Amino acid sequence: MTTPRTPGSQHLFHLERWLPAATWLLGYGRATLGQDLFAALVVTLMLIPQSLAYAMLAGLPPQVGLYASIAPLIAYAAFGTSRTLSVGPVAVVSLMTAAAVGDIAATGTAGYVEAALVLALLSGLVLLGMAVLRLGFLATFLSHPVISGFITGSAVLIAASQLKHILGIRLEGDTLVELVPALVGALPAANVPTVLIGLFATAFLFWVRKGLKPLLLRIGMPVRAADFATKAGPVVAIIATTLAVAAWDLAQGGVRVVGAVPAGLPPLSFPRFDAGLWTQLLPAAVLISLVGFVESISVSQTLAAKRRERIDANQELVGLGSANVAAALTGGYPVTGGFARSVVNFDAGARTQLAGVFTAAGIALVALLFTPLFRNLPQAALAATIIVAVLSLVDLGTVRHTWRYSRSDFSAMAVTILVVLAVGVEAGIVAGVLLSIALYLWRTSRPHIAVVGQVPGTEHFRNIERHTVLTSAHVLSVRVDESLYFANARYLEDRLYDEIARRPEIRDVVLMCPAVNYIDASALASLEVINERLLQAGVRFHLTEVKGPVFDRLQRSHFLDHLSGRVFLSQHQAMAALDCETTRRADDDVPAAQPPPTGAGATKEGKAATDQ
Amino acid sequence: MTTPRTPGSQHLFHLERWLPAATWLLGYGRATLGQDLFAALVVTLMLIPQSLAYAMLAGLPPQVGLYASIAPLIAYAAFGTSRTLSVGPVAVVSLMTAAAVGDIAATGTAGYVEAALVLALLSGLVLLGMAVLRLGFLATFLSHPVISGFITGSAVLIAASQLKHILGIRLEGDTLVELVPALVGALPAANVPTVLIGLFATAFLFWVRKGLKPLLLRIGMPVRAADFATKAGPVVAIIATTLAVAAWDLAQGGVRVVGAVPAGLPPLSFPRFDAGLWTQLLPAAVLISLVGFVESISVSQTLAAKRRERIDANQELVGLGSANVAAALTGGYPVTGGFARSVVNFDAGARTQLAGVFTAAGIALVALLFTPLFRNLPQAALAATIIVAVLSLVDLGTVRHTWRYSRSDFSAMAVTILVVLAVGVEAGIVAGVLLSIALYLWRTSRPHIAVVGQVPGTEHFRNIERHTVLTSAHVLSVRVDESLYFANARYLEDRLYDEIARRPEIRDVVLMCPAVNYIDASALASLEVINERLLQAGVRFHLTEVKGPVFDRLQRSHFLDHLSGRVFLSQHQAMAALDCETTRRADDDVPAAQPPPTGAGATKEGKAATDQ
Repeated sequence: MTTPRTPGSQHLFHLERWLPAATWLLGYGRATLGQDLFAALVVTLMLIPQSLAYAMLAGLPPQVGLYASIAPLIAYAAFGTSRTLSVGPVAVVSLMTAAAVGDIAATGTAGYVEAALVLALLSGLVLLGMAVLRLGFLATFLSHPVISGFITGSAVLIAASQLKHILGIRLEGDTLVELVPALVGALPAANVPTVLIGLFATAFLFWVRKGLKPLLLRIGMPVRAADFATKAGPVVAIIATTLAVAAWDLAQGGVRVVGAVPAGLPPLSFPRFDAGLWTQLLPAAVLISLVGFVESISVSQTLAAKRRERIDANQELVGLGSANVAAALTGGYPVTGGFARSVVNFDAGARTQLAGVFTAAGIALVALLFTPLFRNLPQAALAATIIVAVLSLVDLGTVRHTWRYSRSDFSAMAVTILVVLAVGVEAGIVAGVLLSIALYLWRTSRPHIAVVGQVPGTEHFRNIERHTVLTSAHVLSVRVDESLYFANARYLEDRLYDEIARRPEIRDVVLMCPAVNYIDASALASLEVINERLLQAGVRFHLTEVKGPVFDRLQRSHFLDHLSGRVFLSQHQAMAALDCETTRRADDDVPAAQPPPTGAGATKEGKAATDQ
Repeated sequence: MTTPRTPGSQHLFHLERWLPAATWLLGYGRATLGQDLFAALVVTLMLIPQSLAYAMLAGLPPQVGLYASIAPLIAYAAFGTSRTLSVGPVAVVSLMTAAAVGDIAATGTAGYVEAALVLALLSGLVLLGMAVLRLGFLATFLSHPVISGFITGSAVLIAASQLKHILGIRLEGDTLVELVPALVGALPAANVPTVLIGLFATAFLFWVRKGLKPLLLRIGMPVRAADFATKAGPVVAIIATTLAVAAWDLAQGGVRVVGAVPAGLPPLSFPRFDAGLWTQLLPAAVLISLVGFVESISVSQTLAAKRRERIDANQELVGLGSANVAAALTGGYPVTGGFARSVVNFDAGARTQLAGVFTAAGIALVALLFTPLFRNLPQAALAATIIVAVLSLVDLGTVRHTWRYSRSDFSAMAVTILVVLAVGVEAGIVAGVLLSIALYLWRTSRPHIAVVGQVPGTEHFRNIERHTVLTSAHVLSVRVDESLYFANARYLEDRLYDEIARRPEIRDVVLMCPAVNYIDASALASLEVINERLLQAGVRFHLTEVKGPVFDRLQRSHFLDHLSGRVFLSQHQAMAALDCETTRRADDDVPAAQPPPTGAGATKEGKAATDQ
């Protein structure tokens, strides 16, 4: 025990593994405290309207949004690895919650709130299960175009769904196809004071986002201060519209308000076990978990990279999973790391997750003391904050870039957007994922196959259609640019037979395999058939540039024993050996004097040659 | 019109396209006629017991098997491209028919026969639809191990399902899990005369298959004659057991017999349109079509290759599709090309599909005149022909080879076999296909990524773990052996960050892409993130050996504009340029005097270097 700190650090190492918060809790200082407190203040101001608005979007009572912004933040602070991620209600997950729970119970019923709790619990358990089984890689199947299309489509759908609050009308409909005609039909029933409030709030918030900051900078305000003044926009809009409603008693005039919100800390809640309900909600919980995880980890990794901090994807599953379990146990609904709020938290100077804990304390204070202030808060103002927030998620630039880069990726994105808008969020993401996989399989099932020739004066062999190269009259060299597997094995067969059928003078076929990383059992069977059919046509079959692991595997089969030709290390060696050999064979029309390397090959090749 | 044959041949060309039979009908001669007639005789003798037995396996009346062996053969003869394929009832498709139709109606009811007709019609329409939409490639998703496992599992299941006929008991159960305990429980109820007939027939047929031919050869019979004598085995067994039943009136003693079979040509049948029924049967029809197509095309291609004939996969869809439509219109059930029967047809010397037409005529003759002969035919003897036929499909050699070649392919095969036996044929094939795709995605999602170094004295770069190579202290060269796409993009990111984190002295990362055939939008986004993060860590990112099509596509994005390093043609050039440059940079710790090729790169690289 000469180095007394070692056991301590080892102990710390274990603690860190289970409680990542330990890394920053030890050595926490006064300077950091100040930064975290300031960031928490900014985020709390932003989170108050957001938590109420997203609860409304999810079809839940306003206090549920507040509850989901307390315990989950503390759970993530303890178990998550991002120091600046802001966990809580977010727009897309709120929409997914509404879609999933809306199938089960009517908005405003106790069953609806209960189902949202179950959804949060299931989502938490799915995330924790993925952590235990190390299934985080499943999130990679939500490809970039699908996620991007999903968020753009969802944002448009969310904005459309909020128009009813701006217009002050009741409206049924979950898809754009249902919402648009319903909105048009209901326009005459719009409530004029509500429309005025909604339009004012929307216009004000857009102006805050686009015009306020340049203005403040022009009048000499420091950049940081101007930045944060713009973040307070939603709070200002909400205070102004609430005062207007109270002053002119607009609630009597038909302006729908948030109304009575029960004061108090989050209740303890234990979602009831009901096998039927749980089974029904599980698919939605899986989708919510995956989408939430992808959104959250991409923002946390982006922020961590800026400060050279490390994100552990598996531990993030634990962090987000426990946040959702915490939401389920304290009257909340599914949560995840929000993009915009995390960036604000980071920019406001948050150094550790203590900022998250302070934010939770801020929201708890609001839930305890300030809920009476929301009585006259007009729903139209909340809808305006949602619309302005989500429209910034519509990313037409990425749609355009994807179109230019790859039609296949674009089609996955476009289908995701269209199905989200026309059918719904869950169908949209499932359609996008299935289409991505189908397009990938389709692409690899028709690999690039090039006939190659020698670049004069070099040992390089290139596509005869792209380069001026030398080819042999009797040797066909073909390069396949893909691993060989069940979906493309027959395609290779067909291409080779076509080439052979077109050129009866061919005596040797050489398959270049520098890009073949794997040959599965189906492709092996195809290679055996190719070898056999070519042999029957008097053509030998050779392989070149076979990778080490692929060759090792081939040696475990009987393929190499039956191969009519040889396996060459390089295409150059193959051509050097075959070209003269084959030319002589073709000229003399007798078996080659020089025997091929294997006995089997020699016998069969001799037979094939005399068959001519 | 100086060459009067040209318009004629052109006309013929069109005719051939729509009616492949035209290719062999013109110029048909007497010698060919003799060969086709002989082959038809052999196949007819084989098909009589098979058509009755497979109809029994499908749960259908015996005459349905005969009907399915008449019109479909003529339809295929007209529209198919194989000259020797023998179309008609086959074991696996009969089992799939029983599984699909058994869910809808009870065996022996009119609804059951009707549903089988609908299944044949749907299967025909699916095949024709695949031909029109050129979807034949879908069959490639039934990978070799899945098809092989499916046939082995189905064969065991079929054999087990026939034991009830051998024992003369009634038994419910569609899976091995249900059949085995039911069989054991029902053993005491076995009918002794039935068991004797069943065991005799089974033993006799096994002996015919294994022992008869060597015996006949030993007594001096020519090979071909001995071959065909063995094919007559099932007919002999059926005649002998029928005579035994008739002679001793065993039907009274509880031996179940085929009984009255209505005489006459196939009836015209029009499957009734019933949206509910059609929808319910469609998935099974799709699976039957795919399995039938794969079985059929593999045997037709094997046989065609032996005589240098050509099979057009798309026209085969038309041929098999019209055969199934013909079955639906003439009181039959789903058909396809049978493996064993086609080989017999080929070996018996069939030259054209006229052999198939003659076989149809032979079966029509049987249906018209000889059905009274089946009255005393014991079902146990039919069951014996099925058992002996299907057990030859059990292919443990392929199971063993696949195990040795690839655990992944083996697991797809094993799951297919187990699910077929434990759950059913449809579930088995679906599970196999989904698992194959999942395993392929899994494999490509974790590509082989090697850190490479230079083989001394050459321009080759190889895996540092497999070869003795030279590496640079400041340059990390990594080769990725897979196309980059959504499922593996993050894996590459993680691997690169890990390598960088382990080696803080690295100043340049070079990604070798000789095996990268495609970079999708998700992988492009990952490369952009990698570039940005490495830049923030003061490390430049370079690419080498990027393929032409991949580079063309990258140029359509902004990636190359932001790339901190360069794109080199070869790894050797990259190392020559970077090694000295970087070493100097690292030693001096100032920006390199020699500017990188792009302006953006120069600025950022300079900034990154001064950040150190």
